[in-house]
Amino acid sequence: MSQTVKKTGVKKVVLAYSGGLDTSAIIPWLKETYDNCEIVAFCADVGQGEEELVGLHEKAIASGASECYIVDLKEEFVADYIYPTIATGAIYEGTYLLGTSMARPIIAKAQVEVARKVGADAVCHGCTGKGNDQVRFEGCFAALAPDLKVIAPWREWEMRSREDLLAYLAERNIQTTASATKIYSRDANAWHISHEGGELEDPWNEPSKGVWTLTVAPEDAPNEPEYVSLSIKNGRVTHVNDEALSPYAALMKLNDIAGKHGVGRIDITENRLVGMKSRGCYETPGGTVMFAGLRAIEELVLDKTSRTWREQIAGQMSHLVYDGRWFTPLCKSLIAASESLAELVNGDVVVKLYKGQATPVKKRSPNSLYSESFATFGEDDVYDQKHAEGFIRLYSLASRIRALNTK
Amino acid sequence: MSQTVKKTGVKKVVLAYSGGLDTSAIIPWLKETYDNCEIVAFCADVGQGEEELVGLHEKAIASGASECYIVDLKEEFVADYIYPTIATGAIYEGTYLLGTSMARPIIAKAQVEVARKVGADAVCHGCTGKGNDQVRFEGCFAALAPDLKVIAPWREWEMRSREDLLAYLAERNIQTTASATKIYSRDANAWHISHEGGELEDPWNEPSKGVWTLTVAPEDAPNEPEYVSLSIKNGRVTHVNDEALSPYAALMKLNDIAGKHGVGRIDITENRLVGMKSRGCYETPGGTVMFAGLRAIEELVLDKTSRTWREQIAGQMSHLVYDGRWFTPLCKSLIAASESLAELVNGDVVVKLYKGQATPVKKRSPNSLYSESFATFGEDDVYDQKHAEGFIRLYSLASRIRALNTK
Amino acid sequence: MSQTVKKTGVKKVVLAYSGGLDTSAIIPWLKETYDNCEIVAFCADVGQGEEELVGLHEKAIASGASECYIVDLKEEFVADYIYPTIATGAIYEGTYLLGTSMARPIIAKAQVEVARKVGADAVCHGCTGKGNDQVRFEGCFAALAPDLKVIAPWREWEMRSREDLLAYLAERNIQTTASATKIYSRDANAWHISHEGGELEDPWNEPSKGVWTLTVAPEDAPNEPEYVSLSIKNGRVTHVNDEALSPYAALMKLNDIAGKHGVGRIDITENRLVGMKSRGCYETPGGTVMFAGLRAIEELVLDKTSRTWREQIAGQMSHLVYDGRWFTPLCKSLIAASESLAELVNGDVVVKLYKGQATPVKKRSPNSLYSESFATFGEDDVYDQKHAEGFIRLYSLASRIRALNTK
Amino acid sequence: MSQTVKKTGVKKVVLAYSGGLDTSAIIPWLKETYDNCEIVAFCADVGQGEEELVGLHEKAIASGASECYIVDLKEEFVADYIYPTIATGAIYEGTYLLGTSMARPIIAKAQVEVARKVGADAVCHGCTGKGNDQVRFEGCFAALAPDLKVIAPWREWEMRSREDLLAYLAERNIQTTASATKIYSRDANAWHISHEGGELEDPWNEPSKGVWTLTVAPEDAPNEPEYVSLSIKNGRVTHVNDEALSPYAALMKLNDIAGKHGVGRIDITENRLVGMKSRGCYETPGGTVMFAGLRAIEELVLDKTSRTWREQIAGQMSHLVYDGRWFTPLCKSLIAASESLAELVNGDVVVKLYKGQATPVKKRSPNSLYSESFATFGEDDVYDQKHAEGFIRLYSLASRIRALNTK
Repeated sequence: MSQTVKKTGVKKVVLAYSGGLDTSAIIPWLKETYDNCEIVAFCADVGQGEEELVGLHEKAIASGASECYIVDLKEEFVADYIYPTIATGAIYEGTYLLGTSMARPIIAKAQVEVARKVGADAVCHGCTGKGNDQVRFEGCFAALAPDLKVIAPWREWEMRSREDLLAYLAERNIQTTASATKIYSRDANAWHISHEGGELEDPWNEPSKGVWTLTVAPEDAPNEPEYVSLSIKNGRVTHVNDEALSPYAALMKLNDIAGKHGVGRIDITENRLVGMKSRGCYETPGGTVMFAGLRAIEELVLDKTSRTWREQIAGQMSHLVYDGRWFTPLCKSLIAASESLAELVNGDVVVKLYKGQATPVKKRSPNSLYSESFATFGEDDVYDQKHAEGFIRLYSLASRIRALNTK
Repeated sequence: MSQTVKKTGVKKVVLAYSGGLDTSAIIPWLKETYDNCEIVAFCADVGQGEEELVGLHEKAIASGASECYIVDLKEEFVADYIYPTIATGAIYEGTYLLGTSMARPIIAKAQVEVARKVGADAVCHGCTGKGNDQVRFEGCFAALAPDLKVIAPWREWEMRSREDLLAYLAERNIQTTASATKIYSRDANAWHISHEGGELEDPWNEPSKGVWTLTVAPEDAPNEPEYVSLSIKNGRVTHVNDEALSPYAALMKLNDIAGKHGVGRIDITENRLVGMKSRGCYETPGGTVMFAGLRAIEELVLDKTSRTWREQIAGQMSHLVYDGRWFTPLCKSLIAASESLAELVNGDVVVKLYKGQATPVKKRSPNSLYSESFATFGEDDVYDQKHAEGFIRLYSLASRIRALNTK
Repeated sequence: MSQTVKKTGVKKVVLAYSGGLDTSAIIPWLKETYDNCEIVAFCADVGQGEEELVGLHEKAIASGASECYIVDLKEEFVADYIYPTIATGAIYEGTYLLGTSMARPIIAKAQVEVARKVGADAVCHGCTGKGNDQVRFEGCFAALAPDLKVIAPWREWEMRSREDLLAYLAERNIQTTASATKIYSRDANAWHISHEGGELEDPWNEPSKGVWTLTVAPEDAPNEPEYVSLSIKNGRVTHVNDEALSPYAALMKLNDIAGKHGVGRIDITENRLVGMKSRGCYETPGGTVMFAGLRAIEELVLDKTSRTWREQIAGQMSHLVYDGRWFTPLCKSLIAASESLAELVNGDVVVKLYKGQATPVKKRSPNSLYSESFATFGEDDVYDQKHAEGFIRLYSLASRIRALNTK
Repeated sequence: MSQTVKKTGVKKVVLAYSGGLDTSAIIPWLKETYDNCEIVAFCADVGQGEEELVGLHEKAIASGASECYIVDLKEEFVADYIYPTIATGAIYEGTYLLGTSMARPIIAKAQVEVARKVGADAVCHGCTGKGNDQVRFEGCFAALAPDLKVIAPWREWEMRSREDLLAYLAERNIQTTASATKIYSRDANAWHISHEGGELEDPWNEPSKGVWTLTVAPEDAPNEPEYVSLSIKNGRVTHVNDEALSPYAALMKLNDIAGKHGVGRIDITENRLVGMKSRGCYETPGGTVMFAGLRAIEELVLDKTSRTWREQIAGQMSHLVYDGRWFTPLCKSLIAASESLAELVNGDVVVKLYKGQATPVKKRSPNSLYSESFATFGEDDVYDQKHAEGFIRLYSLASRIRALNTK
């Protein structure tokens, strides 16, 4: 890897840094390539786990960064990114709960904030050139900081494998604990973990047990179901089993409970934004329960036309989030539409967890359009069966006229 | 129940007859109410089960019908009503697989055909005045036979309970095996069975074990998963476990296999077409597997825009079928759109059945946009990572311009 | 018309009263039918014209009302009903600017407020049983005052024609200036006037000159075009020809200018909510200019995805307003979505009026995504033509893969 | 322009050739750049006008092409590209009738056919790197001939202006009649002509008279309106003023008539597919009349739900066509959906042309859901005003329940 001509014009770069092999190699590469620019490492804590953060600061400095910012975004991530998304009901291509996608805008925003703070003139990420994340990050950068240069080493350098990276670091005497083989490519945050690669690259292969990390196999889950109760207010879970919890704490608790029951495994071959298919496995244990809880309350409170509209918002939002268009007028509009409906999403749900399934089995709401007492309303007051005839006649009138006119 | 003034103008009625308490009472009621008109009983065999049909002819005659037509519609139901619907991906309100809804148009159509054959001037159904089925039947009648009078006894007579009906039959010395108490109201066909009433009337009650009839409880299902393979051609399952089967036979086989594993239970509080909420439990064991199989192949063959469009068709179709608008130009158009896409839905899926879940774990298709060999294409040929930069720049250009212009 | 049995249980009725023949007859009919109940006349001033209001109070009392409330809703109508609707871009079936539809909810709401104030137990309207307005009024009543009884005389009494009504009033010695013949049925407010009936009942007839009342025929309009400038802020016209005007005053001024140029005539055969087609002619002179002005600014400020979404909101809103579902969670959600986008709809438009056409010919906006200076941006900064190759490769990648895989 | 290193691997190129300055320069440039490859000129006759085709063959040969194919696609263009598009009702961003967009796929397809015939290994177009057409052409090439190399000189060479091109040709002694100044960039075919550039680059400028070429100014149009009658069958105009005409001939006749009346001018600032805004003026005289005629028949034959669906198809199709995604499963599905509805679009329309406006004033259809005789149906048969009460009660039931439950 000879990089003979130094590129100029970049003095300070904020790098989205994870401490993994890729971003560890990026630090020296940036300095060599961009004329010894200063590197500020930035790591967003979006709930990827303590073990990912331990020693990160030291590692960044050791790799050549001048500073390392670790920003705790866990509560904000759940409150301001996850909830507005799941309130819409967004599921990408019918299956994927958007775990990686939702994290990108909050990370990009915080990265830009660090860039402003330290007076950087560029931002850098370690996403590959075949994935969605590069588009999401750079789409956010374009909206938030169009003046900052974006550096995407995987599209620029010639390294193509873990071996290349390890060799590159070895040449420079930079230590790493990374190994040459890593079966799966993973991305984790409070909401989910994703898995790609290995045997998953053939959709004709069933995922092996080694793929999954957050959930037990349904076969290994307890033989007794467990019931968990959620209290929901304006589309947010406020209590789990009657305990008041912050958004992040509620999610963590549900991750724990649901993971034990094998809940939240997803296996999808999806359309990437960049035009090709990829196959991924995802685990979203607590999120699956939260999501089911919101939908269960909606069953009680949304009328037919409102629910249909909510599904349209969901369809739009699923693509918007997947495609990384968070900081756009469209996103604001979708959220405004959704939050308006979410004012009705209040109540309690009991979800049964058993061998991989999360099934709402009890639900009630102060905004319910269903109520047992309704059945006992006098017919004159609310529903007269004879009204049905008139309804049907007019409801089917166009069909009748068409049949009569075209006889 | 005094019916002093005979209504006139109806000479022969074709009644959608099930042999149950309601339609058994309707026969004498029609004759008394409509000036001794002739009653032709009609029963559509849509797979509700042999036991529902045994002795039906005799029973109808005994109740006062002059004839009884039992028409086998099982294969046509699956081929021409179920498949065109599930090919679209239609699920009502995110949960309900439309089992009762899909059966109504084929029954109404066959009933009209019998009416034409016997020269009837009216058709009659036993649906109540609070449900969806009256709208579905009468919507179909309006489209197919706007000249036929429609009689809906439940909206006309004053009886309101099973006790009323039993008393009415007893007065007339018509024998019935029906009992006064029946906890759940049920509707069955090849695709599903529905359950309403009893403790289900409170959504805060978990359905009791006694509700379910087609599936075992997940807790009682085998401890070992079972794998079932589907071969799919143009959106239709042609083989189950490599055995070529007719549409109906394939569904029956899947019902059997999936029911044993507790697959296909649904519990929903839904918006009825007539404006109120109702809570129903549904069992669709084989259908759930079929449905999952079709979606799995779609993951491989539909690109992002096609899939998004397919979801819009699904949303439209779910309401159209639920609302009983089968015989309309809209339905033809939706099916045309869907069948065009279904030409791509070819391949094989292996579905894992375990404790209530049906999970596609292996999938392949000759029309797949995913292929392992793709990964090994020379970059120049199909995908150059450097192309991503250009893509991202233009993809996010509007965001960039907005940010620049509104600085 | 013999009404032998007095109906009971209604003591005080608030009647939506126009002073026309229908509602004049309704007053005595209500008193006779509902056991001498008290009638409170209510008239909403939504800009239907001074001449409709002159002497109205006296007329109501003379017809038998105990009180007459005339409520000025003109500014509120434009600000809170028209603007939120047109900001969405709603046009019913591609043509109708919803003039009558938008007025119904504000009238119903004010009518309910009067009913609460005077302690009435019923509300009454003079809409016929074949039209949309009965559904709109009663849908609003259901949402706002489900406890109030609704009386719809045209569905209850047996009178069917103007002659019947005149005879009815003559029998009771109630004077009326109404004549037996009235070619067209009309409804007017600040936004529009509608015309139905007469030769319009055959869509194969061109509307005659006598139909139109607010606009001159294009053939009779000035031979010179006129230019009118609009300043727009958050989707509202704040200035007309640089004069700051209230919402209602701006509409009036535009009605005046546009009417002189024959702008705003519509001729549509539309689908009524109650299932049949009707043919109507509408005049919306000022509204047509306003509507065009908003859309013109949107051309500058909405990106491709936002604009597509705005069209979906428009489609939903057009049906919601037409169908009278204003006081619903769906309406709130649609407006929230639309107002979020409307924050960008700022700027100036010059509209050319000529012989029936209103054409925006100049437009500018502080939120514009278009700017001349953009063309002069260095390519490196915003748009490098070479980026296009990458964009195209990824944009068409799914097509390419499909072609390669299915060779 | 020094092109020192010859590129290799291209032996024969089919060039989309117009005879204009750009494509004239491309021929020698290709030969010089791609190692003296053979150039086959290809020109699609899509109705751009005789004058564009005269002498084209000679010119191509003189510029260095080895062959020149001119393919008459006029009837196919109207029948197989325009009609399927306008049957859906597609209008891009509410205004643009997609004239340029619709022509691209048929041209690309014919170009690929020529490439196959002559055994070429590359195709080439003269579109710039900032426009939509490059995406459309290359999207079609990707779908139809992913193996062919695509050459886009404007993204590859360093010339940036007409002056550059003229100098380039002069250096090589290739004659051209092109002048250095050309105010507007134009694209013409049977359906329309587009205009960009000059004063249009500022949306605050009204288009000057010199922009327009196919239509007279409304001010200069005849003072008397003209009526033109269309007969329509399955969504296609079969007769104009009772004369049976082929698709192309009908369009030409309507272009002639409508152009005289100033009909079909459009002025839009649109979102390009590549992310920036552009301002264009378009003239679609005959197409505007055709389009209005189809919509007028639809008013008679489509019920409310069908029409709503047709609008959704239109929205999808407008983007699909604009974005150049013609040869995709989505396009087939949209057309299948649309053609199914178009079976109902039969009848006659009279359109009034006057001073820039095309107004359908008379319409009738054998599939009409409206008919005068309907008004005289006995109420019992089709519509009983009393049915309306039942309809309204159920239609507004959810609102009523919500109001009652949340009191």
